Amino acid sequence: MLNSHIGLLVDKYELTMAQAYFKSGRYRARACFDYFFRKLPFQNGYLIYAGLQDALELISKFTFNDEDADFLLGEGFATDFVDYLRDFRFRGDIYSFKEGEVAFPTEPLLRVEGNLIETQIIETLLLNTLNFESLIATKAARVRIAAGNRSISDFGLRRAHGIGGIQASRAAVIGGCDSTSNVYSAFRYKMKAVGTMAHSFVQSYDDELTAFREYARFNPDSCILLVDTYDTLNSGIPNAIKVGKELEESGHRLIGIRIDSGDLAYLSKKARKMLDRAGLTYVKIAVSNQLDEVVIKSLIHQGAPIDLFGVGTRLITGQPDAALDGVYKLSMFDDQPRMKISDSLSKATLPGVKKVFRYFNGDGGFMADAVVLADETEIERIYHPLEREKSFRVSDLKKEDLFVKVMENGKIAIPFESVEVIANRVKERLTLLPPEHKRFEFPHIYKVGISKKLMNLRDSIIRHYLGEESE
Amino acid sequence: MLNSHIGLLVDKYELTMAQAYFKSGRYRARACFDYFFRKLPFQNGYLIYAGLQDALELISKFTFNDEDADFLLGEGFATDFVDYLRDFRFRGDIYSFKEGEVAFPTEPLLRVEGNLIETQIIETLLLNTLNFESLIATKAARVRIAAGNRSISDFGLRRAHGIGGIQASRAAVIGGCDSTSNVYSAFRYKMKAVGTMAHSFVQSYDDELTAFREYARFNPDSCILLVDTYDTLNSGIPNAIKVGKELEESGHRLIGIRIDSGDLAYLSKKARKMLDRAGLTYVKIAVSNQLDEVVIKSLIHQGAPIDLFGVGTRLITGQPDAALDGVYKLSMFDDQPRMKISDSLSKATLPGVKKVFRYFNGDGGFMADAVVLADETEIERIYHPLEREKSFRVSDLKKEDLFVKVMENGKIAIPFESVEVIANRVKERLTLLPPEHKRFEFPHIYKVGISKKLMNLRDSIIRHYLGEESE
Repeated sequence: MLNSHIGLLVDKYELTMAQAYFKSGRYRARACFDYFFRKLPFQNGYLIYAGLQDALELISKFTFNDEDADFLLGEGFATDFVDYLRDFRFRGDIYSFKEGEVAFPTEPLLRVEGNLIETQIIETLLLNTLNFESLIATKAARVRIAAGNRSISDFGLRRAHGIGGIQASRAAVIGGCDSTSNVYSAFRYKMKAVGTMAHSFVQSYDDELTAFREYARFNPDSCILLVDTYDTLNSGIPNAIKVGKELEESGHRLIGIRIDSGDLAYLSKKARKMLDRAGLTYVKIAVSNQLDEVVIKSLIHQGAPIDLFGVGTRLITGQPDAALDGVYKLSMFDDQPRMKISDSLSKATLPGVKKVFRYFNGDGGFMADAVVLADETEIERIYHPLEREKSFRVSDLKKEDLFVKVMENGKIAIPFESVEVIANRVKERLTLLPPEHKRFEFPHIYKVGISKKLMNLRDSIIRHYLGEESE
Repeated sequence: MLNSHIGLLVDKYELTMAQAYFKSGRYRARACFDYFFRKLPFQNGYLIYAGLQDALELISKFTFNDEDADFLLGEGFATDFVDYLRDFRFRGDIYSFKEGEVAFPTEPLLRVEGNLIETQIIETLLLNTLNFESLIATKAARVRIAAGNRSISDFGLRRAHGIGGIQASRAAVIGGCDSTSNVYSAFRYKMKAVGTMAHSFVQSYDDELTAFREYARFNPDSCILLVDTYDTLNSGIPNAIKVGKELEESGHRLIGIRIDSGDLAYLSKKARKMLDRAGLTYVKIAVSNQLDEVVIKSLIHQGAPIDLFGVGTRLITGQPDAALDGVYKLSMFDDQPRMKISDSLSKATLPGVKKVFRYFNGDGGFMADAVVLADETEIERIYHPLEREKSFRVSDLKKEDLFVKVMENGKIAIPFESVEVIANRVKERLTLLPPEHKRFEFPHIYKVGISKKLMNLRDSIIRHYLGEESE
């Protein structure tokens, strides 16, 4: 993917701030930032956290070459600061949820520790990667839930946001797609690539039957025929059946047909009957055309005998939201916990170096998450983040610390995780999330609370800033 | 940007089809494909066509290296076909609208001519690039229209779709943004980069005034202060005024303040009064936070004294549509015009090698476009594409041929166009589009018709396929 100029993947203000930190010498003090999001996309009940591996790879390539340095000098940055950037490497530590983990609003999913420049300068790169891949993985997880155990494939590259489509296909497979049409991503991330023919293939022949026969001749064991170029029921399917029988005669089997337009419920039912009547009960039916989790759910509800869904635009662009609102906020600097105090407590950030505990219910499923300070090992109760009087006991529940050190002194500190490993984690973790959080309509809100120590820290800082007396 | 493995930026079916074309030897015959879209995004009255330069650059780098070849062999492609790909280069011709042109549904914006493999294999790369950059340029044009002559800047990289954000910022400036926060894109495409400080800068100091003073100390002539970290009216703006006066004393000038939360109309009016009362009438007011053309229009309507709008998520992701539905369809193969005949004439494609004429009204503005066959030089009348009896005379109108040869035998055949040149074209061409097509609410539909020759060709092919007698 990107191999040079990675240091320029910043919003300009990160450099302007970094220069001020450099000039003042303050940058040497240690800082900590949290990545978290406030609002779930798709009115979903959970987020699938994705993009970590890509982000770590980009951070380890985050440098400035001579060309970059010249550019920044031309932009008016000072020579001594640009010289500092010439030698820049991220040398901090990163703690994070595992990629593929199920995550919820307001809890930190990742924290970065290091000097003030190195923690600030990777802000945009982190946000860009994690926000986007998590958005698409979450959308794909919804599509997977709708499709049950039928196959789903990402067909979205042509409608993806430019070369961001490379990451999108990765996230789609992490979230639940079985395969992708995107060959670049299949190559880069070792995923299964699929694809057979477009309408242009059929059109390039004088007639449909010849086109099908030619395709089958060169692909006798991987033949899926697109049947809607001219007339699905009167031409496409009958011709596919002819070729299917011819393949049988030569000892092969037609894999499937694909329908890309029209009423997919109606046509797939008709197609199934026609195929079965011809003895081609093994031939699968694939469909595509503006699919998403809602359409797929409806098709299945209508009893459409579809084996594979090709999902494009709406998956790969994360419609209807198209963005996750993840942010990156300073939580500690120079040993002082820091927070942003907005108009309301609900928009204030949580101060201090933190991590997240996940608690399990009696059935072994996820029950609640607690944001705690990094030095806490056990907590008695989880407190509602906004309502001090609401709390419940967790000290006797099984728990997991969700934070793993993924980068240490700028070096990736976890083994490389393949897309397959991450996708399997998504599957496993989603089975631990109770069903009421997974339904599409008004999912039950998952509890995320804070520890008493964190609550007290936050409230004392607020009192300090608002000029009230401390406790 | 991407420099290797560009040949893998395909949907797998392009390779599967290419292999069948290769094996049969049919690929040597000449083919022609059209790029067009069916539905305007944002219920807008026009599209800004963008992405051409990036697409041409990617096509000229579209090759397969040894690693790619090994991967394809592993995917089951045949050795002789993969060997063919090792030497593959696009050697065809491409004709296109100029980048930045105003375009409309159903008309071809670009056509590709060459052998069947080379024209087919670049399908996804073309669609991916042109669909996305056109989407964002169109969104930016709407934001520009809403903002009038006030400054707008793209702040979207953190919410962009991964590294697709690099292309998004380019398209945003083409469509009408004055600048971008995205340093990578500013470097790559020679655009103006802007940015000053985040909340973290203010938070990293013990108090806001010290933070502002420090920033001003290192940026005395480019200082824009973010005033909403703690309390915009009671702390942020008063502190910015203090620093503004201090800058005056040392012979500098505070450039501006930025408000990133709260009611931007209310706060900007208050801020303007406070600044003016302090004699800082020259200090500009910048705002950001979930802006788009609708919010900007409303802010201006409310008389908000805002000088610069930082526009992020909704611009960079092209919300609410997030995708342009552009397609790439075969129109000619082996000297035979080809078309896709769907259920309805409205979804059928236009056959033959084509180009587009634009006709001008008496005021010099755009009046109508006509899709014609490539060998037509003059036409008498434009015909409604679906209703044969509707037509109007154009033979006495001034016209332009919108198609330019942009690639010849695989070599880029136009001079490199900078983003500035393309952005200026957008401005100029939009002034020629009558205002009723530019309004946000129910824009007047621009006329796109076809020539009689094209209509007759299409209708004769339909009759042929449907088995009716020819004329």
